[in-house]
Amino acid sequence: MNLFDLEKHINEILKVEQFDDYCKNGIQVEGRHEVKKIAIGVSYNNTFFESVKSWGPDAILVHHGLFGKGVIDITGYKKKRIENLIKNDISLLGYHLPLDASFEYGNNSEFLRKLGIEIVEEFTFGYKGKLKEKVEFQNLIKQVKEIINNQKLIYYENKKYSKNITVVSGSGANFIEKLDPEVDTYITGSVEEHTRDIAKDMGVNFINAGHYSTETFGIKRLGKYLEEKFDLEVKYFEYYNEV
Amino acid sequence: MNLFDLEKHINEILKVEQFDDYCKNGIQVEGRHEVKKIAIGVSYNNTFFESVKSWGPDAILVHHGLFGKGVIDITGYKKKRIENLIKNDISLLGYHLPLDASFEYGNNSEFLRKLGIEIVEEFTFGYKGKLKEKVEFQNLIKQVKEIINNQKLIYYENKKYSKNITVVSGSGANFIEKLDPEVDTYITGSVEEHTRDIAKDMGVNFINAGHYSTETFGIKRLGKYLEEKFDLEVKYFEYYNEV
Amino acid sequence: MNLFDLEKHINEILKVEQFDDYCKNGIQVEGRHEVKKIAIGVSYNNTFFESVKSWGPDAILVHHGLFGKGVIDITGYKKKRIENLIKNDISLLGYHLPLDASFEYGNNSEFLRKLGIEIVEEFTFGYKGKLKEKVEFQNLIKQVKEIINNQKLIYYENKKYSKNITVVSGSGANFIEKLDPEVDTYITGSVEEHTRDIAKDMGVNFINAGHYSTETFGIKRLGKYLEEKFDLEVKYFEYYNEV
Amino acid sequence: MNLFDLEKHINEILKVEQFDDYCKNGIQVEGRHEVKKIAIGVSYNNTFFESVKSWGPDAILVHHGLFGKGVIDITGYKKKRIENLIKNDISLLGYHLPLDASFEYGNNSEFLRKLGIEIVEEFTFGYKGKLKEKVEFQNLIKQVKEIINNQKLIYYENKKYSKNITVVSGSGANFIEKLDPEVDTYITGSVEEHTRDIAKDMGVNFINAGHYSTETFGIKRLGKYLEEKFDLEVKYFEYYNEV
Amino acid sequence: MNLFDLEKHINEILKVEQFDDYCKNGIQVEGRHEVKKIAIGVSYNNTFFESVKSWGPDAILVHHGLFGKGVIDITGYKKKRIENLIKNDISLLGYHLPLDASFEYGNNSEFLRKLGIEIVEEFTFGYKGKLKEKVEFQNLIKQVKEIINNQKLIYYENKKYSKNITVVSGSGANFIEKLDPEVDTYITGSVEEHTRDIAKDMGVNFINAGHYSTETFGIKRLGKYLEEKFDLEVKYFEYYNEV
Amino acid sequence: MNLFDLEKHINEILKVEQFDDYCKNGIQVEGRHEVKKIAIGVSYNNTFFESVKSWGPDAILVHHGLFGKGVIDITGYKKKRIENLIKNDISLLGYHLPLDASFEYGNNSEFLRKLGIEIVEEFTFGYKGKLKEKVEFQNLIKQVKEIINNQKLIYYENKKYSKNITVVSGSGANFIEKLDPEVDTYITGSVEEHTRDIAKDMGVNFINAGHYSTETFGIKRLGKYLEEKFDLEVKYFEYYNEV
Repeated sequence: MNLFDLEKHINEILKVEQFDDYCKNGIQVEGRHEVKKIAIGVSYNNTFFESVKSWGPDAILVHHGLFGKGVIDITGYKKKRIENLIKNDISLLGYHLPLDASFEYGNNSEFLRKLGIEIVEEFTFGYKGKLKEKVEFQNLIKQVKEIINNQKLIYYENKKYSKNITVVSGSGANFIEKLDPEVDTYITGSVEEHTRDIAKDMGVNFINAGHYSTETFGIKRLGKYLEEKFDLEVKYFEYYNEV
Repeated sequence: MNLFDLEKHINEILKVEQFDDYCKNGIQVEGRHEVKKIAIGVSYNNTFFESVKSWGPDAILVHHGLFGKGVIDITGYKKKRIENLIKNDISLLGYHLPLDASFEYGNNSEFLRKLGIEIVEEFTFGYKGKLKEKVEFQNLIKQVKEIINNQKLIYYENKKYSKNITVVSGSGANFIEKLDPEVDTYITGSVEEHTRDIAKDMGVNFINAGHYSTETFGIKRLGKYLEEKFDLEVKYFEYYNEV
Repeated sequence: MNLFDLEKHINEILKVEQFDDYCKNGIQVEGRHEVKKIAIGVSYNNTFFESVKSWGPDAILVHHGLFGKGVIDITGYKKKRIENLIKNDISLLGYHLPLDASFEYGNNSEFLRKLGIEIVEEFTFGYKGKLKEKVEFQNLIKQVKEIINNQKLIYYENKKYSKNITVVSGSGANFIEKLDPEVDTYITGSVEEHTRDIAKDMGVNFINAGHYSTETFGIKRLGKYLEEKFDLEVKYFEYYNEV
Repeated sequence: MNLFDLEKHINEILKVEQFDDYCKNGIQVEGRHEVKKIAIGVSYNNTFFESVKSWGPDAILVHHGLFGKGVIDITGYKKKRIENLIKNDISLLGYHLPLDASFEYGNNSEFLRKLGIEIVEEFTFGYKGKLKEKVEFQNLIKQVKEIINNQKLIYYENKKYSKNITVVSGSGANFIEKLDPEVDTYITGSVEEHTRDIAKDMGVNFINAGHYSTETFGIKRLGKYLEEKFDLEVKYFEYYNEV
Repeated sequence: MNLFDLEKHINEILKVEQFDDYCKNGIQVEGRHEVKKIAIGVSYNNTFFESVKSWGPDAILVHHGLFGKGVIDITGYKKKRIENLIKNDISLLGYHLPLDASFEYGNNSEFLRKLGIEIVEEFTFGYKGKLKEKVEFQNLIKQVKEIINNQKLIYYENKKYSKNITVVSGSGANFIEKLDPEVDTYITGSVEEHTRDIAKDMGVNFINAGHYSTETFGIKRLGKYLEEKFDLEVKYFEYYNEV
Repeated sequence: MNLFDLEKHINEILKVEQFDDYCKNGIQVEGRHEVKKIAIGVSYNNTFFESVKSWGPDAILVHHGLFGKGVIDITGYKKKRIENLIKNDISLLGYHLPLDASFEYGNNSEFLRKLGIEIVEEFTFGYKGKLKEKVEFQNLIKQVKEIINNQKLIYYENKKYSKNITVVSGSGANFIEKLDPEVDTYITGSVEEHTRDIAKDMGVNFINAGHYSTETFGIKRLGKYLEEKFDLEVKYFEYYNEV
């Protein structure tokens, strides 16, 4: 498949033009134009590169590619990350906020579907969901843990039951202040020093399920879609991160 | 002591006018004007308030007071935090960035002094320091742990030894990209998903010593100074936070 | 009635989300959640508060509540205004630009209706209206005076007759420069040093009918609506201001 | 005297380059280059122009010239104001904020000197002054009235005596919130609907001495200086404005 | 015809309200209100003025009128340009970006129509077109030259044939970087030092057909339309510019 | 010499930290750290790269390196430019505005020195100079041509003689409006459609001496300095550009 056709297709299904992001969503580094094998993962870096290299991908497709705005500056740790791609003629495609927010292929919608929670409405880059029946918060924690391979959780219990549950993958801790009053439980991928007491003073249950662990769903879903839709070999490479 | 004289004095020694912050540095909520007893701590919230209330302070002085910019909005969890102060006629004074950055009374300069590291120059809101002799990174970790009461650390070892050490208290993880090439070790109070691999690709040792744990030094140092300088009773209230 | 349901309802009928204002439109200070009695007025301040206190309102609803953008700063004259509310558990709701601009409940549309002038189109936060027959400007002045209880007017006569009349309540003097050429008469609630000669050089009649006096219509109209629609006691408190 | 030399000299003594204003400070419309006669006044407009025309000035020098930022647009009431100058080959020079703020030639410093009040420090575009002995506020009002030819004042008495007095000429009403606590009396040239109650809730005396009436001092002082310094005929043209 | 009716009509057909420009699009200097004769041209300046003066126009209508944003400043070379209009009571109307971009009356759509190229889609302020059959680039150059009266061209040949051709009149050289990959030839009215090598490294043919020469089409087309539609005498005045 | 020591030294002598530019001034692409041979030139692109490659430079140092602000986007024509460097392990250093403006090593100061004109003061990124005796403008043109190897000039004569001469290398045409009245001649490296008539209406002589041709002086001067100061081989590569 042609690299630019691939980019155009993903840009359309993820509605890339609707997002103002601090990375380019699409081709960040241009490699060979004929794409047959795509390595996917959560985050691009030199360790990730080494783990996919021998598989021989034509392109790497990740949630966290190369970040940053400003003048062109290919030095320091970024230089090696770019050099690895260019010397091996491998393209890097990154999709950040569009892959959090997508209803079809996104981290948050997938998370809620895996928990069996019906999606009710958008909330920043995530979604608010509603359970048919309330569950004990301790039960919900167990279900979350199963989905994310027993990642260690930081959680704050301020209500015995959960029913209206909002999920924002990644660094979403500060969005807790914007929850509507109906929400009893907030799941995200980060926690700040002030989060414990804001959750307590708001009376809301809180779960930090990990930045990495909440962001594997979207890229896997997207990879599967591409493999089925086009004549492509797609392989997910795990490089686990406790944060 | 008069409340406004107290504020004026602290504003001067912390050079408040030099900072563009997302909270007011100074009196955030005005209570009784005669101040004899000051409760100090890292973060103001309703649990903290309950713990200091019976001691009968005239004012509360913290590093994390009331944050946020925008139109006046005394609702939700903030309403109760303000109500507690107003109904008890207790003032709230907050000093944020000036208390990170101060050379005399700051979180970072105090941290380096406790580790016996000579301060070399400013770095964002913290400081760069230099050891006379290099130490093994694993040794440095032990020393850091002692200072912060065995707070659990997340660390990434990318060099065997440490000698040039930069410290930024609180949410400083992203400043790692701005370190000058001489620095071998970065200590801060937060960690992001990408920090592990940026540290690795840069070849820099990294320690997340906790947001709370890196920010007790400044307020304690300031409290001691005020107690000695003026006719005031000052008491530190611990409300530990693992984050 | 529940406080948050009340806010939600007013926000909807005044289309609050369409305005970028320098105050919050809605609940500015949260008091008791059950609302039965609402004191309404033009402007909230300590004198106004004293005058409504003995009536025992659950909430105060005004056009001018608490203004200002920036970091949280509950000191000086604002502190007492907030303290009065919090110590008495009374909510403050403010609606500023949405209450100037509303076609149904606004200061300007009501003003024109009281003068018997047909509304033609929007103009900034006010409206342009058209009389069926032109009237002498001196006659129009008399009619305006009747509506605003003989408030002393500053006016500049530059045409003998009025027919196309634009009204902007409050501090609208500078909008005179944006009038379309058809307008012969501009009524607003403020006057600047340069207004006299801009009106003269434009050849437009000008009336300053007072900031306060042009802004009682909307809040009264809204109060009456709420009283009829819901099970609420609503009372308007006059605190006249010649400006 | 050459027009550009004149501009250069005034720009220097008023420190024009220090101000970010919403008009050009200097030559706004270029007329004949040889300047012998200068008509001065507070505000330029067509009525003012007619009153000075027969005297035959080479240049008009005012505090309020042509205001506004944006694309070039010589239409409507501004067109005639510019045409009058160009057809008669008369220059227009305007000095706005620099003429409020100047210590030597400014509206505010002159005002305080005329009241016999010692200037203590700058305050926005005006000055804070201090009397040797406190005076009754009612007495101060009388003195102010004498200086400004019995202009009708709006004032709010909230303290019996005045000693620390701040003056900001023109539209300064909203700066009342920034006064330091020592100030007991604020004199300015405008008043807003909320000023009465902010002054009351702050406990500060307030005088609106008129926009026009507080802004004749600077231009007169500057005119006198130019007449004495250079070989120029300078004449002040009064066009009184009650606002 | 009335001047303001004329402006209103042109504003509508050129969709002026859709553009954020660095000049006013419409009446820039207001002259006599009754318009019978309109002199049109590309650029207004004193030489252009002298050439149209004896013809006795009521208004001048150009693509490049008076440019610049900021405070009112009628000095230097702009003063004479304005004086010429005001002393002769002639209006100046300028239409800049709307006259580049208009599909009906624009510089770029007219250019493509004259070359017999079908317009496919908008591109910044110009259009992308497509030929039915590819032509040799050297042939295209000849056709362009004929249309613009043998203006000397700077061109860079990087492909033998042209088929997908994008045109942006005036200073469009830097838009070359935004061309979509299908475009093989870019025609504009300027060239920068880096253009030659960007065109070469992109593999795109480039023609600088001159700022002036690419911008006569729109104003002529608009002039003809106005002459036919209204009872007006319209005359184009050539003042050729090799740039 | 070490690459980072080289960058640090140039940054200091060109006062890089004083400029807000649309490229990084310093290392734009990091190559090998040991630098012995430096290829210098005006503009980096793929043709320039091919011409220097066989000489075997460790670093390329130019006035025009990689431009643009925004998210990381290594695609299109920029991809090949970066690839050439990375695959050959050659660094790219770019110095833009600091190399125009430098008094010691800059394009403009060097230009004036070569013309034997004394530098009087800074003007934007260039300098104003003064001749001891006025020269005929046609004579000045001849001298300029000699310095820039008979580059074809566009010039506009509006005064017979030149004495006060301002020079701004590169795209400086629009700065003509900011010249002080004493300047009779402006030399720059670009020309716009409106320049001819602004120069004429201002009465100022104008020379467009070419973007490339006005910008060889600084980089040559810097190269010579580096060669003499350090143990480096430095070679200038001409890739002439008529623009």
